[in-house]
Amino acid sequence: MRETSWWGIALLSGRVTVPAMKISTAEVIATGTELLQGRTLNRHGYVLGDLLIAHGVVLERETVLPDDPHRIEGCIREAMQRVDVVFVTGGLGPTDDDRTLGAAAAALGRGVVHDPKADAHLERFFKKIGRVPTKAQRGQACIVDGADVWINPVGLAPGQRIEHKDGVVILLPGPPRELRGVVEQDVVPWLRCCTQDEAGTVMRHFRILGLSESLIQERVVEALTPSPSLDLSYCARLGSVECRVTGPESDVLPAAICLEELFADDLLNATGESTAVTLAGLLTEKGLTVATAESCTAGGIAEALTDVPGSSAFLLGGIVAYADAMKVQHLGVAAGTLERCGAVSADVAAEMAEGARQAMQADLGVSITGIAGPGGGTEEKPVGLFYIAVAGDAGTETFRYMAGGNRAQVRGLGVQRALEQLWRRVKR
Amino acid sequence: MRETSWWGIALLSGRVTVPAMKISTAEVIATGTELLQGRTLNRHGYVLGDLLIAHGVVLERETVLPDDPHRIEGCIREAMQRVDVVFVTGGLGPTDDDRTLGAAAAALGRGVVHDPKADAHLERFFKKIGRVPTKAQRGQACIVDGADVWINPVGLAPGQRIEHKDGVVILLPGPPRELRGVVEQDVVPWLRCCTQDEAGTVMRHFRILGLSESLIQERVVEALTPSPSLDLSYCARLGSVECRVTGPESDVLPAAICLEELFADDLLNATGESTAVTLAGLLTEKGLTVATAESCTAGGIAEALTDVPGSSAFLLGGIVAYADAMKVQHLGVAAGTLERCGAVSADVAAEMAEGARQAMQADLGVSITGIAGPGGGTEEKPVGLFYIAVAGDAGTETFRYMAGGNRAQVRGLGVQRALEQLWRRVKR
Repeated sequence: MRETSWWGIALLSGRVTVPAMKISTAEVIATGTELLQGRTLNRHGYVLGDLLIAHGVVLERETVLPDDPHRIEGCIREAMQRVDVVFVTGGLGPTDDDRTLGAAAAALGRGVVHDPKADAHLERFFKKIGRVPTKAQRGQACIVDGADVWINPVGLAPGQRIEHKDGVVILLPGPPRELRGVVEQDVVPWLRCCTQDEAGTVMRHFRILGLSESLIQERVVEALTPSPSLDLSYCARLGSVECRVTGPESDVLPAAICLEELFADDLLNATGESTAVTLAGLLTEKGLTVATAESCTAGGIAEALTDVPGSSAFLLGGIVAYADAMKVQHLGVAAGTLERCGAVSADVAAEMAEGARQAMQADLGVSITGIAGPGGGTEEKPVGLFYIAVAGDAGTETFRYMAGGNRAQVRGLGVQRALEQLWRRVKR
Repeated sequence: MRETSWWGIALLSGRVTVPAMKISTAEVIATGTELLQGRTLNRHGYVLGDLLIAHGVVLERETVLPDDPHRIEGCIREAMQRVDVVFVTGGLGPTDDDRTLGAAAAALGRGVVHDPKADAHLERFFKKIGRVPTKAQRGQACIVDGADVWINPVGLAPGQRIEHKDGVVILLPGPPRELRGVVEQDVVPWLRCCTQDEAGTVMRHFRILGLSESLIQERVVEALTPSPSLDLSYCARLGSVECRVTGPESDVLPAAICLEELFADDLLNATGESTAVTLAGLLTEKGLTVATAESCTAGGIAEALTDVPGSSAFLLGGIVAYADAMKVQHLGVAAGTLERCGAVSADVAAEMAEGARQAMQADLGVSITGIAGPGGGTEEKPVGLFYIAVAGDAGTETFRYMAGGNRAQVRGLGVQRALEQLWRRVKR
């Protein structure tokens, strides 16, 4: 589940200027037999669609194809007839089922050549890890003749941009982290260049915590009399809702002021940033330190907090207290509390948070205890029940939640609610 | 990342019998403008691909289209020329952007009619919640003339199967739980009927740790003289590679035996399961307990281990030791070792693993310390360097790794390598 706009374009600044552009339509062709066999979830159209719309480019179609060079070639030809730019992902690796390079060259009527820049990158990579590339690995330095090469910052196969009379074809590596690397480094700047930079439509993302999507929509519709040129959309994410406001600046600004007042207490930010990123900024700014104590999520809260670079400034550490003995020995939870209330209880959550805070001499302690399932639920304490506690100088507060869904969903929501409650405490 | 089959069909057994069939090829057309704007992740091709391959049907293409009736109609016509069955998902709801029904009727040259069976279902639904359906909601009882109606067990818009001289078109509701409801109740039994149940093609997934994709392919090609009917494909995942072997049973079995010998030490499993799932099974089987000590991944290893239901049987807990003081106080790392070797060192990793094991009285301790970046790297200890240690009765071993990529990638690989080394120790 993506929590921030993947691209960090201007989203982090809270406002994106969506310009009129020279390039206005796109298609994605995702290649890989595994994408059609239920083995790998294809996220490329989702990820590129998000990027493109932020640049005012409409993604008109995504086609997922197996590693069949003839079908890939035919599909590239057709897509070029329909749109300005065709993104082709996957099939650039070193093995026999990587067929995209040849297919793209054939569709464009060009040859395949060895690229010195890509080769030098490959050399450096293998030198660093102290291995000698195989012949197949070396083949990843091949490109479509005349392509502009975008070196892959996290892998070997480069991205390639081929300008053609019928439009632009862009080849991107399939592994998500490699695709993301090339996109962030080269596709985004390129897109910026070929979409005009006139101030026009403006977009703002409001991230709201603790309220349902339909309640938010009801309140917005009640408070705003939107002009027809204002586009409002809502997207429920795990533990938060994003409300996106798009339109001419003269309409968006008053709407933004209205929304900021409307959701004052629950408004995480107006940038679309994740809870962890916003919380990290606030903790760093206030110079506060945090310690975690986790049962149900078993490290998920600490992991989320440390996803943010520079998190060692505020996270001292954490205790994953899965066994009850851990809760007693390392967090100072009283054996009597465990016996009286059970491990999944507000009292144990409170003692865990306070225990973590003391054990690590932190300003704040945050804890979770709950039943993630599938087993372990009872009528009184069903699967999905969890307690969060936040401890600090101002005292300890506890919060009770019931989550629907499977084990992963309960744990995911647990992490988000813990971050939310920590954020509510810190921003006071 | 899903690691087991959604459908629970035979994937977990490590072998899927893919029968010869009357219906053998399919396409999916997923409709919805939101799928192309980075707002909703489309999982329909992934989910249906998994179902189809388990029935021996090849999903040849997935096309994602916006809510545009002309494009949907055109795409259905084209797909019917190519394959036996076309699944069209989404666009069957009550709002203005639901355009699939009309588009499918046009593509098939049929009318749209009101269906008494679907209407009765709708009546019951609204009676139960005590409301009167709007005209638009009532429209969800409309179907393509001559369609076989599959009542939606969790929603209103029914699934529809239309037999046509050019093949079969199946309309399915877009919301994932509704799609799943109709698929489980009606599509699966229908598929069973029209795919013959003879033993035919067989598929096996080999998950291999610690070797590169291209090295694995080289070794496989050297060892096997594959018959033309044997299909080999490779997929690199974070920290592991999946090698898939598909073909007639008489070819796959000897190939499987050959691969099992070839990769004996590095072969995680022949089922495609994740490292965490395989390791969890092994730990449970051997009755061993684990404690974690994490710096760089800050809870990621414990979280991965507890993704598996029933993990409280083997994971006692963990220490997230982000600050050096945590390492000394909670893990018993000697201040002298930290000073002499630095926090990111084999010696500190070893003391962390042994410290975790002792602090939690576990059979095994596993630790990680490293530099995830983007800051904190030096020439001697660059970003991406990390050490893993595994401690147990048989002693403590340490492992040094260099990872490429950004913070999330270094941390992700750190978790996978820790699970890998723990697995190597436990399986001895």
